[in-house]
Amino acid sequence: MNPPPNITDPLVLFMPSGKRGRFPVGTPLLDAARSLGVYVESVCGGRATCGRCQIEVQEGNFAKHKIVSTLDHISPKGPKEERYERVRGLPEHRRLSCSATVQGDLVIDVPQDTVINAQVVRKAATDRVIERNAAVQLCYVEVEEPDMHKPLGDLDRLKVSLEKDWGWKDLLVAPHLIPKIQKILRTKLPDQPEVSEGKWGVTAVVHRDMDSSRPFIIDLYPGLKNEAYGIACDIGSTTIAMHLVSLLSGRIVASSGTSNPQIRFGEDLMSRVSYVMMNPDGREAMTRAVREAVNTLIGKVCEEGGVDRHDIFDCVFVGNPIMHHLFLGIDPTELGQAPFALAVSGALQFWAHEIDIEVAPGARLYTLPCIAGHVGADAAGATLSEGPYRQDGMMLLVDVGTNAEIVLGNRTRVVAASSPTGPAFEGAEISSGQRAAPGAIERVRIDPETLEPRYRVIGTDKWSDEEGFEEASWATGVTGICGSAIIEVVAEMYLTGIISEDGVIDGAMAERSPRIVPNGRTFSYLLREGRQGEPRITVTQNDIRAIQLAKAALYAGVKLLMEKQGVEAVDTIRFAGAFGSFIDPKYAMVLGLIPDCDLSQVKAVGNAAGTGALMALLNRDHRREIETQVSRIEKIETALEPSFQQIFVNAMALPNKVDAFPKLAEQVKLPPRKVVEQPGGDGSPRRRSREERAARRQRD
Amino acid sequence: MNPPPNITDPLVLFMPSGKRGRFPVGTPLLDAARSLGVYVESVCGGRATCGRCQIEVQEGNFAKHKIVSTLDHISPKGPKEERYERVRGLPEHRRLSCSATVQGDLVIDVPQDTVINAQVVRKAATDRVIERNAAVQLCYVEVEEPDMHKPLGDLDRLKVSLEKDWGWKDLLVAPHLIPKIQKILRTKLPDQPEVSEGKWGVTAVVHRDMDSSRPFIIDLYPGLKNEAYGIACDIGSTTIAMHLVSLLSGRIVASSGTSNPQIRFGEDLMSRVSYVMMNPDGREAMTRAVREAVNTLIGKVCEEGGVDRHDIFDCVFVGNPIMHHLFLGIDPTELGQAPFALAVSGALQFWAHEIDIEVAPGARLYTLPCIAGHVGADAAGATLSEGPYRQDGMMLLVDVGTNAEIVLGNRTRVVAASSPTGPAFEGAEISSGQRAAPGAIERVRIDPETLEPRYRVIGTDKWSDEEGFEEASWATGVTGICGSAIIEVVAEMYLTGIISEDGVIDGAMAERSPRIVPNGRTFSYLLREGRQGEPRITVTQNDIRAIQLAKAALYAGVKLLMEKQGVEAVDTIRFAGAFGSFIDPKYAMVLGLIPDCDLSQVKAVGNAAGTGALMALLNRDHRREIETQVSRIEKIETALEPSFQQIFVNAMALPNKVDAFPKLAEQVKLPPRKVVEQPGGDGSPRRRSREERAARRQRD
Repeated sequence: MNPPPNITDPLVLFMPSGKRGRFPVGTPLLDAARSLGVYVESVCGGRATCGRCQIEVQEGNFAKHKIVSTLDHISPKGPKEERYERVRGLPEHRRLSCSATVQGDLVIDVPQDTVINAQVVRKAATDRVIERNAAVQLCYVEVEEPDMHKPLGDLDRLKVSLEKDWGWKDLLVAPHLIPKIQKILRTKLPDQPEVSEGKWGVTAVVHRDMDSSRPFIIDLYPGLKNEAYGIACDIGSTTIAMHLVSLLSGRIVASSGTSNPQIRFGEDLMSRVSYVMMNPDGREAMTRAVREAVNTLIGKVCEEGGVDRHDIFDCVFVGNPIMHHLFLGIDPTELGQAPFALAVSGALQFWAHEIDIEVAPGARLYTLPCIAGHVGADAAGATLSEGPYRQDGMMLLVDVGTNAEIVLGNRTRVVAASSPTGPAFEGAEISSGQRAAPGAIERVRIDPETLEPRYRVIGTDKWSDEEGFEEASWATGVTGICGSAIIEVVAEMYLTGIISEDGVIDGAMAERSPRIVPNGRTFSYLLREGRQGEPRITVTQNDIRAIQLAKAALYAGVKLLMEKQGVEAVDTIRFAGAFGSFIDPKYAMVLGLIPDCDLSQVKAVGNAAGTGALMALLNRDHRREIETQVSRIEKIETALEPSFQQIFVNAMALPNKVDAFPKLAEQVKLPPRKVVEQPGGDGSPRRRSREERAARRQRD
Repeated sequence: MNPPPNITDPLVLFMPSGKRGRFPVGTPLLDAARSLGVYVESVCGGRATCGRCQIEVQEGNFAKHKIVSTLDHISPKGPKEERYERVRGLPEHRRLSCSATVQGDLVIDVPQDTVINAQVVRKAATDRVIERNAAVQLCYVEVEEPDMHKPLGDLDRLKVSLEKDWGWKDLLVAPHLIPKIQKILRTKLPDQPEVSEGKWGVTAVVHRDMDSSRPFIIDLYPGLKNEAYGIACDIGSTTIAMHLVSLLSGRIVASSGTSNPQIRFGEDLMSRVSYVMMNPDGREAMTRAVREAVNTLIGKVCEEGGVDRHDIFDCVFVGNPIMHHLFLGIDPTELGQAPFALAVSGALQFWAHEIDIEVAPGARLYTLPCIAGHVGADAAGATLSEGPYRQDGMMLLVDVGTNAEIVLGNRTRVVAASSPTGPAFEGAEISSGQRAAPGAIERVRIDPETLEPRYRVIGTDKWSDEEGFEEASWATGVTGICGSAIIEVVAEMYLTGIISEDGVIDGAMAERSPRIVPNGRTFSYLLREGRQGEPRITVTQNDIRAIQLAKAALYAGVKLLMEKQGVEAVDTIRFAGAFGSFIDPKYAMVLGLIPDCDLSQVKAVGNAAGTGALMALLNRDHRREIETQVSRIEKIETALEPSFQQIFVNAMALPNKVDAFPKLAEQVKLPPRKVVEQPGGDGSPRRRSREERAARRQRD
């Protein structure tokens, strides 16, 4: 199109990508950017009407690049650009790169926030910059009006224009559009005088990531359509989380969540599978419930973002295998019993309406692949987000829930497993446990001398030993212990010597503190006496056993993966999920929930599954990336490994019977080894066999 | 797979294709056939369970081929083939080519009628042999049962088996199957002991002509599924015609038709378009009506053929542009007014359920492309069937209806047009005209001496001058003249001098025959006086004018196409459609409806549009063929051609004012030129201007 560049041609540098090249004087900056592979959006195809292709000249002497960039080095605004500025407004210093041409050396900034007609602008939900290459593209074209001498149909002439102006070949068309095409082409919008005489100006929504290899016209609008949205959604057993994103700017317009209404059929995954098995219409009811919740949540994010739900053209979903199956209308019964067969493990595509999702009629829906029967598309999303396969070091990625999903690997090899941790980490099976909600104790410290506790409660900023705590906590009350505090209190009890490395509360300590109280044949630790009407909050021997079983299950899974990888330590740890965001890595490590690691390399990453979905939404290359990676991930069925039982038994101890925690020991003073006889005098052999029984229970 | 052939290896010749090759002793004949590109069906993939791959040894000394073929040159039946013969039965001399191996030189017959489990076997509706390459293939595979160590989903393992056994790569799956896959894989059929232990035997229905380039699993069955059907359907304005075909054997199982229920909204196409324009729900009602009729007709052909409609996996539809649009739910209003814009002209694909067609849930539906606004997918079907583009000679293909579709061309170039002939040829606008139905006169002869007529009536074998005619015709009565007889009676009137070359009934002839009767200022020809209660049947001057206008419109279209092609004569003529099947080519030519041509080269081809649909159903290569050809066909808008008016006026004369019919004259004694003054004494100039007005009316 443009003549080949010459060594004397001006040099243009694009930021932030740093890509550079020489271009003849007069080259439109949009063409220059595209020829270098710099992503600049354009809907109108260079007609200076969409305003999507904005850039900014950076003035100055860029000695490092040997470029002196000035405003004289870009062409002045022409009539088209002036019309755009007059009609739609153009921020100061901004130029339309389709109209502005190279006149000399330039440093050009491609802003990442080119927001057109936005109702509401919000802070980004993630600070990650995702390179954009969305599956959906808006393409404005002008179609020739029909002519008796040319028998080509309206749709067929539209395709000709899309091929001529945008290079789309072999375009297919969504079936719902076929009866509408003639009316859309013939609709004249009064406010679009830009459309040429004798031509029909329309914007085609083109989807270029169909499971077929051909691009699809999924929707069509009269005149210039200048915005397209997508949703990224993580369907968790407890919570459904969603981002609403502009596919043109990459901007997150709204993020929100709602509780999964399937909870009424069963709190945890297995009880929902049982519900399906026991009730003839159970699967249908659960599918309907989750789809309705997703539709309601779409309404919520659209209202927050001031967006019409029919402007959503692409949807990406992740979820654990059972949520994934139920959402897609697949009976999850097989996932509830060995060999835990997924109906389908690969990535899938649908028309959104096939899954009853109410967005644009031609919108598409993509689900990430599942890794294995208990390691779902959510783990795949987290894997895409954190990218162990992009690391040189060995990364451990853990998503803790009633079923922990564990991924371990680096550039060379990635392995994955699940561990049935049970609900203890979420506060269930714990005498004073509760969900993380106002009134729940979330932080605990125990004084090593006095053994007195102090704690913090959700809804209050003060610690319990600070003045005004009682008044401050009055509104919420102090109602129980949530997951993060259970980890902390058990870890603190271990660090202060209240419990032994085997997790036995040392009744002898009752002499030192009235908080060690007998409880039948064992002892408890009294965390809080409770005001009138409030519960007495204690940590019982059974609570500690439940936490030991849960953490041993998780650690055993991690350890087996480490054995598969042939490593004795990991380089980085990522905690995904809500639970991971609240637990203190130090206490998790003291408990031996995770292996030894430099604490500065342990990070909570929030809803990494949702971030992975967002990445797949904004950049279709990420879909191919995770599809390829998932097919490479080796799944380990921990319970079938011969060494599982021994590893599990060792992991019952705090932090571990055999594994050392040297890096942790550098930062935390671990107590000296202490063995306490099990109350009732049952010796080591009997206790051992009880732990073995527990290990077997985990396997079955 | 097999070692490379050697010059000393046995020679195998396959009939009827005549393909031959050398194969090492021990090569299965199925492999030998396939390696030569000889089409032999197989569903079970060589397990000797489907019985589809039957062949026959031709014994004898085939001197021409230098082959002595004997039964000793094929391996004896092995245990698998014997089991098949015992369980399912194998006709005498038939062998399963997957099991029988080459032992010496052989001449092998591949029967075209390998019918398995057929309920009803019928005579073929067309004697054309269509080489089979259906879009749908049945593929039996055995899928590995799930294993905890291999996390691949059930669907994903199915794909692995289909790739391993059948070579399918990048398989996609129909969305409706996803929730059903696990149950189908786990269903054991008691009568299928062939399935290997620890494997799931299933038959995948694979569609390899999706508009995406990837093959699709459109359905799945437990065990061996051994039959798949398709329908080919022509939606005419008056009649809907359908073939039900086995996609595995190519056998036509049933053919039937039903009247188009849209007739209640309007007899002809334009009145249906008007109905849509005048009634808010008109389009919807007409779409629903035609789809319901198609579904009912599917029920009818299925009942006739003893076929379950859910075993229909592929559907091909043709129709004129308005039927095509209404069937697909597209408003045809644009087709009712210049510039007659088609919403879509290219071939289209759908899931059958998207068009409300009730067949297998994963069935596909294909519509042939439309050539132009008035030359539809039916004309494309007829073009595929008759193949002007496959001819060296110049072929004229005419489908006469209220709107005639005309295609003219050869290997080098094909042009097409439509002509608004109006309903005269169908008996409308004719004083005694009626549809072709029992009681209608269908054949007419006039004695050149006595001017007495004789005729034949639908429902009676006798001619009217034969003894017993009156008794024989009593049941039906003699109620009117149908299209074919109108052509004949006018032509006979011309040949006997009753009318002039300008179509004027010669009142002077009344002296010679009482059948020439005055009728106001003009004359009529009395064909039949009529018995009690029956109408008097005459041919009026107005009737002749109506026929002249219709035939002039058709001829003018043909002539313009001939001018575009630069030819003065055509080599062959094909009459498509029901009307074409009944008219006598000789009379059509005497009338000047079609140009001069050797009468032996004029053939009626019946429902060629339906035959084209059948070809596209049985061989997907024919889809690509007609898509390519339609894109090459040049559409001529006859009414816009400057010479149209003069050609039309010339074509009002019998057979034509200026064009000669030398080949016709060799076989039919044409009358001497005769000019009769228009009754009432209006001279030639006035008559000319009236004809010009008629020509203009045709153009508007």
